[in-house]
Amino acid sequence: MSKDVKGIAASDGIGIAPAYLLVDPDLSYDKNKKSTDTDAEYARVKKAFDDSIAELKQIKENAKGRLGDDELEVFDAHMTILSDPEMLGQIKDKIANDHATAEAAVDEVTTNFADMLAAMKDNKYMQERAADVKDVAKRAMSHLMGKTLPNIAGIDKPVVIVAHEITPSDTSQMDAKFVKGIVTDLGGRTSHAAIMSRTLRIPAVVGAEDITKQAKMDQTIIADGLHGDIIVDPSEDQVNEYKQKAADFEKERAEWAQLVDAPSVSKDGKHFEIAANIGTPDDVADAVKQGADGVGLFRSEFLYMGSDHLPTEDEQFEAYKKAVVGMKGKPVVVRTLDIGGDKPLTYMPLPKEMNPFLGYRAIRISLHDPEKIFKPQLRALLRASEFGPISIMFPMIGTLAELRAAKKVYNECVEELQKDHPGIGKNVKIGMMIEVPLAAINADKMAEEVDFFSIGTNDLIQYNFAADRGNDSVSYLYQPLNPAFLGLIKHVIYAAHRHNTKAAMCGEMAGDELALPLLMGMGLDEYSMSASSILRTRNMMKDLDTKQCADLVEKALKLDTVEEVQDLVKKTLNLK
Amino acid sequence: MSKDVKGIAASDGIGIAPAYLLVDPDLSYDKNKKSTDTDAEYARVKKAFDDSIAELKQIKENAKGRLGDDELEVFDAHMTILSDPEMLGQIKDKIANDHATAEAAVDEVTTNFADMLAAMKDNKYMQERAADVKDVAKRAMSHLMGKTLPNIAGIDKPVVIVAHEITPSDTSQMDAKFVKGIVTDLGGRTSHAAIMSRTLRIPAVVGAEDITKQAKMDQTIIADGLHGDIIVDPSEDQVNEYKQKAADFEKERAEWAQLVDAPSVSKDGKHFEIAANIGTPDDVADAVKQGADGVGLFRSEFLYMGSDHLPTEDEQFEAYKKAVVGMKGKPVVVRTLDIGGDKPLTYMPLPKEMNPFLGYRAIRISLHDPEKIFKPQLRALLRASEFGPISIMFPMIGTLAELRAAKKVYNECVEELQKDHPGIGKNVKIGMMIEVPLAAINADKMAEEVDFFSIGTNDLIQYNFAADRGNDSVSYLYQPLNPAFLGLIKHVIYAAHRHNTKAAMCGEMAGDELALPLLMGMGLDEYSMSASSILRTRNMMKDLDTKQCADLVEKALKLDTVEEVQDLVKKTLNLK
Repeated sequence: MSKDVKGIAASDGIGIAPAYLLVDPDLSYDKNKKSTDTDAEYARVKKAFDDSIAELKQIKENAKGRLGDDELEVFDAHMTILSDPEMLGQIKDKIANDHATAEAAVDEVTTNFADMLAAMKDNKYMQERAADVKDVAKRAMSHLMGKTLPNIAGIDKPVVIVAHEITPSDTSQMDAKFVKGIVTDLGGRTSHAAIMSRTLRIPAVVGAEDITKQAKMDQTIIADGLHGDIIVDPSEDQVNEYKQKAADFEKERAEWAQLVDAPSVSKDGKHFEIAANIGTPDDVADAVKQGADGVGLFRSEFLYMGSDHLPTEDEQFEAYKKAVVGMKGKPVVVRTLDIGGDKPLTYMPLPKEMNPFLGYRAIRISLHDPEKIFKPQLRALLRASEFGPISIMFPMIGTLAELRAAKKVYNECVEELQKDHPGIGKNVKIGMMIEVPLAAINADKMAEEVDFFSIGTNDLIQYNFAADRGNDSVSYLYQPLNPAFLGLIKHVIYAAHRHNTKAAMCGEMAGDELALPLLMGMGLDEYSMSASSILRTRNMMKDLDTKQCADLVEKALKLDTVEEVQDLVKKTLNLK
Repeated sequence: MSKDVKGIAASDGIGIAPAYLLVDPDLSYDKNKKSTDTDAEYARVKKAFDDSIAELKQIKENAKGRLGDDELEVFDAHMTILSDPEMLGQIKDKIANDHATAEAAVDEVTTNFADMLAAMKDNKYMQERAADVKDVAKRAMSHLMGKTLPNIAGIDKPVVIVAHEITPSDTSQMDAKFVKGIVTDLGGRTSHAAIMSRTLRIPAVVGAEDITKQAKMDQTIIADGLHGDIIVDPSEDQVNEYKQKAADFEKERAEWAQLVDAPSVSKDGKHFEIAANIGTPDDVADAVKQGADGVGLFRSEFLYMGSDHLPTEDEQFEAYKKAVVGMKGKPVVVRTLDIGGDKPLTYMPLPKEMNPFLGYRAIRISLHDPEKIFKPQLRALLRASEFGPISIMFPMIGTLAELRAAKKVYNECVEELQKDHPGIGKNVKIGMMIEVPLAAINADKMAEEVDFFSIGTNDLIQYNFAADRGNDSVSYLYQPLNPAFLGLIKHVIYAAHRHNTKAAMCGEMAGDELALPLLMGMGLDEYSMSASSILRTRNMMKDLDTKQCADLVEKALKLDTVEEVQDLVKKTLNLK
């Protein structure tokens, strides 16, 4: 019997394949049981350890070429632990002396080892080994019990991954070509699983509550990332129906591909820009391939997080230059450093904070000691601007005083560089993120002092609703289409236009199908999104009339709840 | 030579007394040193341990009568650790075998003990003992080195406490009558030190950066909590000058006392209400004594946090009834449960959250399973409303849907109770906190559905500026007088009045001297604050003209920065 499970549509497309459950099996055992034949019991342990080593060898072999040396070394470390004579000796003693079962002996001895390592608080290396010991113990226990641990690195045939959630470490081990779909219990449209799926173009449904309990290993799963529907163990008719839908969608996607070189224009001929959000200069190739009108958000964090030292001005210059040259004359908007307490840097310890999203981050760090981070970054950007159109955008600006302080540092950099490079910076545009609520409220005054706004809806929503977007208990408060929030967005866009300032958006909302007509109706100039969403959006845009969209906005703002707005837009767009 | 240090004025009044440094002494030692006479070295350890026990006995003796039995038991636990033969044995061995110094032996052995206890992750009791071992080790080390540990419980003569920050545990041990002033490195106007000082009426200056480095034990300190000034080691002239100022202030305070029964009225005869924020029914007596026009915020958390079980409907009813009866006909506004991930309850585990201020808290918890917490609380409030005027206020409302859901539960309670108590709830007023930015933006629609707003400025500021009010790295973003924020406050008050809804405020800003004329100019109806600030505010109010205040608002809203507004208000009020 098929089962329907509802979740959040997180990445377009339809995937149909056997389920691969990324869920740990139940490894509990009877703690009161005693062993009688202690030699046989220890032999079970030896066999489980040997099987674990053989399995790890196989996993490592399969992962070669796909994982880096550092990641492969983890498997070696695990095999070494499994051969540790001290640990095996203690397990043997425990069985011989206490008549413990193999399960109890392995569990207790490995737990002691891990706790001892974890207690070495000043030794980070040893603490990490504690995690390795726990991982290894889990593998050995699964062999003892004849159960199979999930192994994402070992997937070598088409699957739909069914998981509680997907971590960046899962992603790094996954061979994307076999993953036909992803469905998760947790997460929303801005979770790691959702963003990663869109980037890799894997259909995904997230926030499906207990899908890991509903689905069994190898059962067929349909993941409809267009509508947020999951069907577990579908009938043959359903499989055929969805195969047809998938084919239709692929056909549609092929039609969109025709729009790669087309302008981003509404039915009534109004021109907009649809740009790409990118994370590294290497993403530029895909942005170009997907027909981006520019890069609307280049997150500069990769330079800082993927390094073991504060990146030098020259290292940054090369990265920015590569991006701007790769975009072949199309504009690139670079956001200055946006890290904080939740994204630690090894070479620059930041204070541990109770609420990192409300803490010392982004422009607040940049302005604290401008010589250290901010100036090298601005100088690198200015130098790169000689190779193509660059815009600089400040994140997390809340007050006019902060904006002015940031511009002052920028102007100092321009003056310094102009001594050797006359005219440098002449074509650079200066903008700010609108993501702190006060900046949105104060948009009129802010707009007077910048060339462009870029509305960061992920943060702006999280602060306006006082709800952490990564916290599932309050994810229902991620409401981009809430009428009061739409009113704020409209206020920001209108304020920008009153001062001839360009209004862009680079949060998830910019690529949201239901938000598009509303944002067009408000006159938003630029929509920056995952490269994979650009063509779909351009296709949708060409069928929308901006005057009708403006009427839709007026109607939506009069409504009370997010559900009413969603229904109105769906009805207007003839969506189900 | 006297030194001037600038901080944040946190509690009115001027304190002059010798400094009491609540700062741990430097307990580092030479790790390369070896002992030669190992017997003498162990004798040093024994003496340090014996001295520590004697000292703890004395502290316990002094604290009797002021601390509860539970708190006194901690001293016994510490003395037991100092007599532990196992620990002493290991220290003795370490000295004998390794020729360790007494310092190294005590440090290493106690650290090992503490780490071992801390590693027992499933045993909360043992983990707490780890903290005790560390405390004890610190005391023994200080005796070994001939240094003195600060001991807040032992203060028995007038002092100004100089601390990095003040914790609730410090407060619980402190005998307030000897504390003439408090100055701290950290904190803002909403820190624990600040709120506690105002409640206990101790002059305080917080956020004074490195005052713990500037001042020495027993040096005279002037703490001017009126202006945020600290003078370390003042001249005789300065002491006399400030003694005069303190006397003037006391005289002024005596004049204010005349206003206990006076109405809260402006110079031009407009009536307002000045109410008290309270935490328990016992605080009602002080509110009445300070002439409160009512209770504007009764935080109901004490019922939940000071208990080992979810408080029953009857327990709550008694508490609310006590408060309402104590206020003798003056209105009492009770805020429903406002706890969350940052305030754990032993009997109701809440998820550990990365950003608790943006998490599952307050009305979000109440609405999740209304039968469990919300309904018993609402029923208790309704029943108490038969003994005097009660208003019910919902915290952390962000959306209209949440407000309607809360009102729906309330109406169900009214219906249920009316079966036995006809007419119950007829006089109860329903309101909401304005503290989530979206609710402030959406004030017009919100106002249609409630009897009153209460603006919670602490949270409203923290979310609007995206800055945790407890995080010193971003405390500069606590800007109640920022013009854009003032614009939002005005919008909320005007929206309330357009719908005949009362506008109150219960955050720190309501008792802020510089904010008062602006809030009066906007027409704020009720100002709820620490009871200790009521008379000062009433006194100030009687000299302010609301039309002039309204002009001041118009001028302030045209300014750009918080500093400009502060200067304007100070100039207008003739403040320094």
